[in-house]
Amino acid sequence: MASYLVTGASRGFGLALTHRLASLPASDVTQIFATARGDAPELEELARNSSGRVVVVKLEVTSEASIKQAAADVEASLQGKGLDVLINNAGTCHYAADGVRSMDNLAESFTINVLGVHWVTRTFLPLLQKGTQKKVINISTTLGSITRSRAAHYLPAPAYKISKAAMNSLTVQYALDYEKEGFTFMALSPGWMKTELGGGEMADLTAEEGAKASLDIILRAGQDLNGKFPNILVKGWEKAEGRNQYDGSITPW
Amino acid sequence: MASYLVTGASRGFGLALTHRLASLPASDVTQIFATARGDAPELEELARNSSGRVVVVKLEVTSEASIKQAAADVEASLQGKGLDVLINNAGTCHYAADGVRSMDNLAESFTINVLGVHWVTRTFLPLLQKGTQKKVINISTTLGSITRSRAAHYLPAPAYKISKAAMNSLTVQYALDYEKEGFTFMALSPGWMKTELGGGEMADLTAEEGAKASLDIILRAGQDLNGKFPNILVKGWEKAEGRNQYDGSITPW
Repeated sequence: MASYLVTGASRGFGLALTHRLASLPASDVTQIFATARGDAPELEELARNSSGRVVVVKLEVTSEASIKQAAADVEASLQGKGLDVLINNAGTCHYAADGVRSMDNLAESFTINVLGVHWVTRTFLPLLQKGTQKKVINISTTLGSITRSRAAHYLPAPAYKISKAAMNSLTVQYALDYEKEGFTFMALSPGWMKTELGGGEMADLTAEEGAKASLDIILRAGQDLNGKFPNILVKGWEKAEGRNQYDGSITPW
Repeated sequence: MASYLVTGASRGFGLALTHRLASLPASDVTQIFATARGDAPELEELARNSSGRVVVVKLEVTSEASIKQAAADVEASLQGKGLDVLINNAGTCHYAADGVRSMDNLAESFTINVLGVHWVTRTFLPLLQKGTQKKVINISTTLGSITRSRAAHYLPAPAYKISKAAMNSLTVQYALDYEKEGFTFMALSPGWMKTELGGGEMADLTAEEGAKASLDIILRAGQDLNGKFPNILVKGWEKAEGRNQYDGSITPW
């Protein structure tokens, strides 16, 4: 019996999350607000076939005006109830072919991956405060772990790594500010997925596998995960040698 | 026998660092390029009395054009030699009185504390590659440690904390990219100092104490500190109870 809002739901992991949420029983999920900044034909089709459970909302995370309009739309749709779970999924992955020195996209990564999450979170906060679950999930990546950066050095995406480290820090700032109100803010690493952002077939998991494993954590998450950085748990990947492990552990910052 | 460049040297910790460097023997320090974005009367006076060891350079870290001009000036002054040590000290500390939700200065903090460090570093990199020490010190703060964020929660400076976490991640990206060339990139926490940025008299150390303790690390730092986050060591503060400890340890990210 919870309402969800997922940003960046037009494709990839966000779309897979929305599909998975829509497949869960009403005892778990009542309504899903799925946001997209532009045309989202696959999401629109899912919404049409959802008997009203999936509502598509226009939202551009780099525009505070757009976020405020989206929050007003969601508030009207909730008819006095609160929003229970916010999943900040919208994000971008920029590459720098010649290493960090050639990185010219850090400002853009910050705007989308950090400021966007901040703006969406604070704008929806009053609705979340009226909600019953008070969960905010910021979709992160183990590539954002500074502690583990050596293992990820082969991947030339410094702006992605740096902006996700900043988003992780932002997540903890919210976690500390709102834990007394019963909130759970977490940075969740959903695994390396075969999406456009993930770079396709080289990746480990399908978006559907990542979405299932992520929702396994999101659905059962309590305040013990507030301010934490959990990794997903995927059967057969707990101890994968020489590659990514999806063992449900907490990733160090 | 090393040349230094210190950004943000017009006042506070940067000025104290420059003073301390100018007091060291020529066997340690040959020349100090001290940058300021505007008028810097105290720094100018120090330079006038330095017999040519301290050279004031105009540099605004938020302008790549200004940084390129400064690098050209420094290159001309070095007469074919390289720059040995770069200390990225220029930075800002923004507050958010009503917690992270009220934070409206994150973009500005990113520009100065992260993009500024990135732009200065990559612009001076060719001169550093010609240098004999290949050290880059990014002035950070334990407030940027995500792991230790609970202990720092009382201080309402989320944009400072988040941007310094991002700068720490940037530091490690450079450390990994350039370690094979013999570089040492570190994020150094110089302690809480009685400067304008530090908020004045409440703080633990004078800028001079912080500068001395920081240079103790910078002068002896080898590649064992590449990609690390050292804390200063100050006698009498190693085990200070209920407050900051300056014990020379490596701070967790």
